[in-house]
Amino acid sequence: MIDPPSLVDQYCHGVLRTELGLGTFEAQLARTEGPPAPGTTLFDTQTGFAVRRWCPPLLGLEPHCAPSRYLARRRELGTMEAGRRLLRGSGITAYLVDTGLPDDLTDPGELARAGQAEAHEIVRLEQLAEQVADTSGTVESFLANLAESVHGAAAHAVAFTSVAGLRHGLALAPEPPGAGEVRGAAGRWLAARGAGDRLTDPVLLRHLLWIAVASGLPLQLHAGLGAPGARVDRTDPVLLTDFVRATAGLGTDLVLLHGYPYHRHAAHLAGVFPHVYADCGAALVRTGARAATVLAEVLELAPFGKILFSSGARGLPELHVVGAHLFREALARVLGAWVSEGAWSLADAQRVATMIASGNAGRVYGVG
Amino acid sequence: MIDPPSLVDQYCHGVLRTELGLGTFEAQLARTEGPPAPGTTLFDTQTGFAVRRWCPPLLGLEPHCAPSRYLARRRELGTMEAGRRLLRGSGITAYLVDTGLPDDLTDPGELARAGQAEAHEIVRLEQLAEQVADTSGTVESFLANLAESVHGAAAHAVAFTSVAGLRHGLALAPEPPGAGEVRGAAGRWLAARGAGDRLTDPVLLRHLLWIAVASGLPLQLHAGLGAPGARVDRTDPVLLTDFVRATAGLGTDLVLLHGYPYHRHAAHLAGVFPHVYADCGAALVRTGARAATVLAEVLELAPFGKILFSSGARGLPELHVVGAHLFREALARVLGAWVSEGAWSLADAQRVATMIASGNAGRVYGVG
Amino acid sequence: MIDPPSLVDQYCHGVLRTELGLGTFEAQLARTEGPPAPGTTLFDTQTGFAVRRWCPPLLGLEPHCAPSRYLARRRELGTMEAGRRLLRGSGITAYLVDTGLPDDLTDPGELARAGQAEAHEIVRLEQLAEQVADTSGTVESFLANLAESVHGAAAHAVAFTSVAGLRHGLALAPEPPGAGEVRGAAGRWLAARGAGDRLTDPVLLRHLLWIAVASGLPLQLHAGLGAPGARVDRTDPVLLTDFVRATAGLGTDLVLLHGYPYHRHAAHLAGVFPHVYADCGAALVRTGARAATVLAEVLELAPFGKILFSSGARGLPELHVVGAHLFREALARVLGAWVSEGAWSLADAQRVATMIASGNAGRVYGVG
Repeated sequence: MIDPPSLVDQYCHGVLRTELGLGTFEAQLARTEGPPAPGTTLFDTQTGFAVRRWCPPLLGLEPHCAPSRYLARRRELGTMEAGRRLLRGSGITAYLVDTGLPDDLTDPGELARAGQAEAHEIVRLEQLAEQVADTSGTVESFLANLAESVHGAAAHAVAFTSVAGLRHGLALAPEPPGAGEVRGAAGRWLAARGAGDRLTDPVLLRHLLWIAVASGLPLQLHAGLGAPGARVDRTDPVLLTDFVRATAGLGTDLVLLHGYPYHRHAAHLAGVFPHVYADCGAALVRTGARAATVLAEVLELAPFGKILFSSGARGLPELHVVGAHLFREALARVLGAWVSEGAWSLADAQRVATMIASGNAGRVYGVG
Repeated sequence: MIDPPSLVDQYCHGVLRTELGLGTFEAQLARTEGPPAPGTTLFDTQTGFAVRRWCPPLLGLEPHCAPSRYLARRRELGTMEAGRRLLRGSGITAYLVDTGLPDDLTDPGELARAGQAEAHEIVRLEQLAEQVADTSGTVESFLANLAESVHGAAAHAVAFTSVAGLRHGLALAPEPPGAGEVRGAAGRWLAARGAGDRLTDPVLLRHLLWIAVASGLPLQLHAGLGAPGARVDRTDPVLLTDFVRATAGLGTDLVLLHGYPYHRHAAHLAGVFPHVYADCGAALVRTGARAATVLAEVLELAPFGKILFSSGARGLPELHVVGAHLFREALARVLGAWVSEGAWSLADAQRVATMIASGNAGRVYGVG
Repeated sequence: MIDPPSLVDQYCHGVLRTELGLGTFEAQLARTEGPPAPGTTLFDTQTGFAVRRWCPPLLGLEPHCAPSRYLARRRELGTMEAGRRLLRGSGITAYLVDTGLPDDLTDPGELARAGQAEAHEIVRLEQLAEQVADTSGTVESFLANLAESVHGAAAHAVAFTSVAGLRHGLALAPEPPGAGEVRGAAGRWLAARGAGDRLTDPVLLRHLLWIAVASGLPLQLHAGLGAPGARVDRTDPVLLTDFVRATAGLGTDLVLLHGYPYHRHAAHLAGVFPHVYADCGAALVRTGARAATVLAEVLELAPFGKILFSSGARGLPELHVVGAHLFREALARVLGAWVSEGAWSLADAQRVATMIASGNAGRVYGVG
């Protein structure tokens, strides 16, 4: 009854091209600091159970079959063919792909071909800055090249994304840093920087955010659960409130990614500020059988025109599948229950489902 | 089966007296910083959907009819008549009305007549202080008049309310400020103050809280979601813990309003401190179809004798209606499920429903 | 269908030996600062209702009978006999007992005999340090005796527990304090200390944590709801993140107790760090009819091999009963729903239920 016709995955990554064994596959199921504890496996998580539910049937197996059986079948088909079957079984019609990971993942074009779908690039600001630093000799050239690179990226990408929250925390000073401050920070960073050093300086992170805002392209900000190494409360999106206020009225949309366990806070900001949007997908892949509840929590405060689906998938096409299926099922269950209780009309529920699945993303990013 | 016979709305405002068009009505559905984003409408929110569910039938229309049709019918009846039908259809038998908003809203007497119900005044401390400042020439006269005004208000009001959390944040020093400190802060504020300037000085906000505590009247403290301009984490009621501890045993009850998304924290304080009460209504108007869950979250830690219903409604009688209906339905569903699972007895559920709907408020405020 | 064969209660206390009247029994139902508010009773809480649901049948009465009737029956049987019937009706097969409370509660041996179960001791670090301080004349002897006591306790206890979060807050510097710093803090504490003074010095609390970590025994850290006197946000387990990171790879497991209302944060840490485990029981006793939801929230991010049941019971055998029954019922309901929706297989659900009920505790503590 409530089944949106297409899905725009507003934030994901490519998939690994290599064959995966049980251990290398398992390691992609969660973001951890260290291997699983003795006597435990990452298959025994909501993500692991969701993969075992949704993916085996796409490869011709029973749901919930043992991981070893699933991986044997995956190897039998080959990584490419398994990936094609999985991605084409996800129901995703457009992928917005963050290409800024150091891992060797498929690029948007490959993802599009494998999944028979559209794909568009999201440019990760910190990665862009690091690449520019690698090829810039002086502070002046670094800053000029950076501005040019962001400008150039804006011409072909559909969005920028920032992991400032994971690198430094979201409690950043809200205003743009002054030119002298930026030059000083850039000089210190470039001088101290070894090959591969990541950008964590808060002045440069803010500078990046503001040149991205100036581009007018939607800016996605990672909040809540993210990379290991962060402290999760430092990624609470409420910490962005003053930055959000400072960027109001400039014509650039801000999209709060992930959010969980602070997704109610992200939804609140999406409700208060016209230019703020809330993601409702990446957390579902992590919370599996609880997806309907987590989605419903986002639907408390976020206006329905401000919610965007994503899978947040990375590395495994199984995660795109799980993201898409958990989302569709959660949406149907949550909105369906509200319809059957009389709280919502069916027509409204169907309209809102389509908005969240693809319509809002189409409007914000101009895709789909 | 579980349907409390009457409702005391322990915190609301009056309603607008003017005719409302689609845009002016929509603007009352949420508290935002700025107009709805292009392509979106505030009708597409939980509050908007709840209004469309509960209100059209009270004006003779189908639930979930289009906003434009609803507003046409509302204009046809006239603001006064529509307001009467709505308020009388809410089931609220007593309104406690915060009269401290600058907007031109109906006063408690008008609300009582329109709704055929009791109405009582809640005095907003910051507004009282601003009015006193408008008419006091010196620091000494300001402080004396303020004390007298609070004393005078205590004679006719049923409660004080403070928005210190929205003006400054709830992380206020817990003890009463010293007399010299208060005089200094008052002097600076009065000297710098232009017409209409709001009170935000933390020393004066604390001074207000403490003279209100001394009055013995229940003191309602806004926490969680509130006015635009605040940062929501600064309104987490746990920030009040030391103030709560400092006021224990003085004979004055503290009521934590709203609370969401920190309503579990408010419930915790209501469980630990004898003089603390938790609101369970205003958040329901904001979260609509999710009202049962939000109410259930309050019911986790808050003793059942410490929970109070409110609508938190402001401006539109529709919000009083929605607050009341969402609360009744959520209460019936949550407690009813616990009865059918055997977790609660039916007699207990009915008794608790009446306590939360009106009994606790009757005891705390002496009304109903 | 989903009913684990045995329960290991990984954290509880003994029970009172004295006869209890209505008021003294009621006072054990919650941790409050002050007596119930006028017109209210602590029986009107989730804990009170859960006790009235589960315990009367074990003493031959109807569920939900009046508290006075229940207590009359309890007195009729006598404290010892009532305790035996209750504990044996809990289904708990092993108790891990924190013996570090000043109250006169039954010791693990008595609990084991009364409940016909295993019992093991958990040593509370702060209590141990206070006892050592009582009998040590100098800083040097205090520190040497403390090290020896912890070493000695590790030989017979199954775990250490720390209430540093309740005494000081969990925002402790993550690294071990230096030897000079410890000597200074010990000197100041011993000199200023009166009889019965509790340890709250952050340097000594950290010192205790680190000598416990060095012992290799699992270390249980209280987080979230706990003793009155604390501010609940200071017990958010995310504040432990850097300490957790500092102790990674040392071979000592950390168990986050309670957690609520920050149980999603505790689950997150259990997901990211191999040596971190999350409790899922003590919060159920506090939240009663909401136990299934609270348990489900823990099951969002915590790997299933990292979740441990406890009752957190203290003083009343009724609380052990309630902890066990709420847990079993919540587990059956949550996992059963996931099986019936097809999200989990039945075999997986049964396996996970046994892991959480006893298997994980058996592995971590070597019991059961």
